[in-house]
Amino acid sequence: MQDFDSARRLYAERGFARRVGWGDRPAILVIDLTNGFTDPDSPVGGDLTDVIKETRRVLDLARSTSLPVMFTSIAYDDPDLEGGYWVKKIPALRVLKMGTDAVQIDPRLGRRVSEPVLFKRFTSAFFGTNLQSLLQSLRIDTLVVCGTSTSGCIRSTACDAVQMGFRCIVPETAVGDRAEAPHLANLFDINAKYADVAPIAEVLEELARFTPKKRA
Amino acid sequence: MQDFDSARRLYAERGFARRVGWGDRPAILVIDLTNGFTDPDSPVGGDLTDVIKETRRVLDLARSTSLPVMFTSIAYDDPDLEGGYWVKKIPALRVLKMGTDAVQIDPRLGRRVSEPVLFKRFTSAFFGTNLQSLLQSLRIDTLVVCGTSTSGCIRSTACDAVQMGFRCIVPETAVGDRAEAPHLANLFDINAKYADVAPIAEVLEELARFTPKKRA
Amino acid sequence: MQDFDSARRLYAERGFARRVGWGDRPAILVIDLTNGFTDPDSPVGGDLTDVIKETRRVLDLARSTSLPVMFTSIAYDDPDLEGGYWVKKIPALRVLKMGTDAVQIDPRLGRRVSEPVLFKRFTSAFFGTNLQSLLQSLRIDTLVVCGTSTSGCIRSTACDAVQMGFRCIVPETAVGDRAEAPHLANLFDINAKYADVAPIAEVLEELARFTPKKRA
Amino acid sequence: MQDFDSARRLYAERGFARRVGWGDRPAILVIDLTNGFTDPDSPVGGDLTDVIKETRRVLDLARSTSLPVMFTSIAYDDPDLEGGYWVKKIPALRVLKMGTDAVQIDPRLGRRVSEPVLFKRFTSAFFGTNLQSLLQSLRIDTLVVCGTSTSGCIRSTACDAVQMGFRCIVPETAVGDRAEAPHLANLFDINAKYADVAPIAEVLEELARFTPKKRA
Repeated sequence: MQDFDSARRLYAERGFARRVGWGDRPAILVIDLTNGFTDPDSPVGGDLTDVIKETRRVLDLARSTSLPVMFTSIAYDDPDLEGGYWVKKIPALRVLKMGTDAVQIDPRLGRRVSEPVLFKRFTSAFFGTNLQSLLQSLRIDTLVVCGTSTSGCIRSTACDAVQMGFRCIVPETAVGDRAEAPHLANLFDINAKYADVAPIAEVLEELARFTPKKRA
Repeated sequence: MQDFDSARRLYAERGFARRVGWGDRPAILVIDLTNGFTDPDSPVGGDLTDVIKETRRVLDLARSTSLPVMFTSIAYDDPDLEGGYWVKKIPALRVLKMGTDAVQIDPRLGRRVSEPVLFKRFTSAFFGTNLQSLLQSLRIDTLVVCGTSTSGCIRSTACDAVQMGFRCIVPETAVGDRAEAPHLANLFDINAKYADVAPIAEVLEELARFTPKKRA
Repeated sequence: MQDFDSARRLYAERGFARRVGWGDRPAILVIDLTNGFTDPDSPVGGDLTDVIKETRRVLDLARSTSLPVMFTSIAYDDPDLEGGYWVKKIPALRVLKMGTDAVQIDPRLGRRVSEPVLFKRFTSAFFGTNLQSLLQSLRIDTLVVCGTSTSGCIRSTACDAVQMGFRCIVPETAVGDRAEAPHLANLFDINAKYADVAPIAEVLEELARFTPKKRA
Repeated sequence: MQDFDSARRLYAERGFARRVGWGDRPAILVIDLTNGFTDPDSPVGGDLTDVIKETRRVLDLARSTSLPVMFTSIAYDDPDLEGGYWVKKIPALRVLKMGTDAVQIDPRLGRRVSEPVLFKRFTSAFFGTNLQSLLQSLRIDTLVVCGTSTSGCIRSTACDAVQMGFRCIVPETAVGDRAEAPHLANLFDINAKYADVAPIAEVLEELARFTPKKRA
């Protein structure tokens, strides 16, 4: 996109977008790849076939090295009560009813019973959940964030991750959005300010370095 | 921007970007209009003359009706220690040293002693500050967010505001950025998902409805 | 208890334990009165028959005036993973498995479907839940906290409530504990520092002042 | 105290108060040992000479092994605005004005410039501060909490520490209170539910195991 070229140049001059790099204990966090978001016919959905394939590559490798994997799912008992002005802004979120198929993890990801699902009501995976607590007690220092949407929950999660002291890595093709322009604009911001947006080959190579670890 | 047109059409079809509207008790929150950000020669700065003028219009009206006004300032004693991977990502933030001129509110805003300054170390005005506590004890239900940058601290603050149950209003010309493309892309996202981005004339008209209130 | 007399005198001299008083929009928050805690044979339980009776009086009045009512329940899919060092400290918490009878609200409280249950993994009702968000979007300013245990989740919830800018009222006989000495010691601290501990008759009288309100 | 004996027996039967133990990266957190709290003539103060001596022993050892040390201080620009209902409950807190001697760390602790002071407005060291972020980016897993008061800020900090996934150790004689009965009652609760309350000799012995570490 031509428009972002001057921003890219300015950020380069100012020294934005430095690499954060990997720590010693990564975990994989898969954001909102539930049926409600991966079904193109759902009011909040889109075709995320490629994102699911790429995320599955990350998951397969993480599982083979026993790295922690966790998922989020937006789900409401009473969307208007719990979702506040967010659901007022995006009424389509009301389809994400607790207990329905829409809030289940897409089966193509092969979620295992031991991989926790954190139910959230808003955009960041950290907001109103026990995610920070879980990561601290597992001593995670690096979050690999996959899923959807780049311009919504991926971005807000990456933003909170850096605020809370975590390194954050976003495999470029393992995150997606229902719309292309916001997807690209947010990848630009995320990489400039919060996380390392990296080619998936590089992420898989880094993950492969981790020998099996057991939870203490 | 041509690219966002298809996103705009898709969001319209899906019912995104509904109006949130005003509550009964607004407060004005001015984000990071400190000398470090408003001096074009500062490593993190830009020319924000127009944003300051527009924000000053909002402030003048709020002051005349005694609505609460508060400011944020990014400031560090030890940037590398306190700013974590955010300062690693954007090393230019290191100039924002506690006690220096760079972290003082731009004098063109005429800050009054009674208007609190919340010092923060990261992007959202809510993160690591007492902002939520302050707003709740003042019973604020609507945040009018001005300042900089649209693609950074304005967006993350609007995002947290909606998560925390506040209505959020962004006067379009009272927020700014060092780069145009991220500014516009983030206004699009903010309006689609988190807050009402509104012309300043409309914001001033709404604010004028509020008769003087005394803090309990 | 004789021991607390000198503390009580010192606090009186120093001006601790001032009244906070009621605001305009109270909600009732019932902490952890789930079968796991109200069954004396449960590893974390005790005989809370009187607490349930007193809490039910508060609930009946709140329901008749349509004041918001909400519940918390400690529940885990994987207690050791999610409960961290708290479950390590108190292994008996492991019985609180998501989906079992132990984490259901005690039927004697007559919970209605419209009254939300917030599942938590730790002690404060605010930690890792959407409680603050829910209260802010309902514009609640006063929390009436009932339930168990006084020396655990009641105290930490009252503490967070005051930190987050809420007025907090604890009806003395509607909170209970499995052990008498910690119950009394914590009522003393709660009243000295965080909340108004009040006779239930006074709480009921205050609640009766509120005419039916509709959610906006 | 006779009263707590039956509680102690009950907790033993139920398996409360298990040991949490030490992790790999401890930090020392000194709570509110500012002149306002350590001057017996201050409205919120008490004679904490012994607590300061014991805390200094912990600090001396931590400094010799380069373990991170941090302090908190309660300080307000406008106590009634920022302190909300907590300051209404305990008006004596109003003496803790930002910039005055009352909010400086007691000089007997020999605070070094490199040891951060986190200013807070409420009881927990985590509330409205960047403490969690700081600890995560330093990869701390164990907090040794010293200072005052046992029945206030020590307890709420220990409670939040366990919620946020940290191991928490309280050296018994390095924490103090203005009143004896709440001090003992809260040590009992803290040890039963949140942290390991340990003799200072044991804490010093554990700390001595840590060879000098450099910040990454």
